[in-house]
Amino acid sequence: MVGSKIIFKNTNLCYIFNEKHMLQKVINFKDKLAKFSEHWSPRVIAEMNDYQFKLAKFKDKFVWHDHQDTDEVFLVLKGSMSIELSDHTVKLNEGEMFVVPKGTKHRPYAKEECHVLLVEPRGVVNTGDSGGELTAQNDVWV
Amino acid sequence: MVGSKIIFKNTNLCYIFNEKHMLQKVINFKDKLAKFSEHWSPRVIAEMNDYQFKLAKFKDKFVWHDHQDTDEVFLVLKGSMSIELSDHTVKLNEGEMFVVPKGTKHRPYAKEECHVLLVEPRGVVNTGDSGGELTAQNDVWV
Repeated sequence: MVGSKIIFKNTNLCYIFNEKHMLQKVINFKDKLAKFSEHWSPRVIAEMNDYQFKLAKFKDKFVWHDHQDTDEVFLVLKGSMSIELSDHTVKLNEGEMFVVPKGTKHRPYAKEECHVLLVEPRGVVNTGDSGGELTAQNDVWV
Repeated sequence: MVGSKIIFKNTNLCYIFNEKHMLQKVINFKDKLAKFSEHWSPRVIAEMNDYQFKLAKFKDKFVWHDHQDTDEVFLVLKGSMSIELSDHTVKLNEGEMFVVPKGTKHRPYAKEECHVLLVEPRGVVNTGDSGGELTAQNDVWV
């Protein structure tokens, strides 16, 4: 395996130490989601090049914000949510995804708790430039 | 909405024409998967910055290959699959994902048909430099 080295192996686990010094293993969404309960507090589960895959639990309304430098992917794993845009609202159910184009004002909303996979470049702040108490710390892994 | 313009709207559908000249709408994986049946023939369903989200149906063995310039994400939507690496094999079930690090030789395999979401930069060839009859055409949208 180019640039990679097995550093630990037993019957249950096998980690690979790659060029990025990251441990590569299979990521199970349900297992990861069971490890946190906070709403609007994304947890990183994987990195791919300069991008991060994050799990989040949404409930109630988030804040209006945008990301000037990047698109943002929302993929619903469980439940349903809405994304308010300036002109209309899109509704996302389990097994659906939506790409919010960069620079697009949006406000996520979930009437009942909704579990979401987010994909965006490393370093993106969840509230964009809007700030506020729902601004989450970045690079919190689960 | 910065850089975007509503071009069509009725009670069921609302498309947004954005800076990339793409139509943004909710993407339903089951609906998209129903539109093709070929194995090892990824279909693009969305773009996010320079990255593509692709749906694919896997069955039997693919070819050994690597991608020298990028990591690659496999996310299982239905069924199960394996990814053979040079040192070991990882098994992925529905609701699980794996990041194959760049430059890592791998061979996907699915005993029964498996539905997968792939995430990788635009332009990545499915067989890497290995070529062969399983090399799929790029940028085929569904």
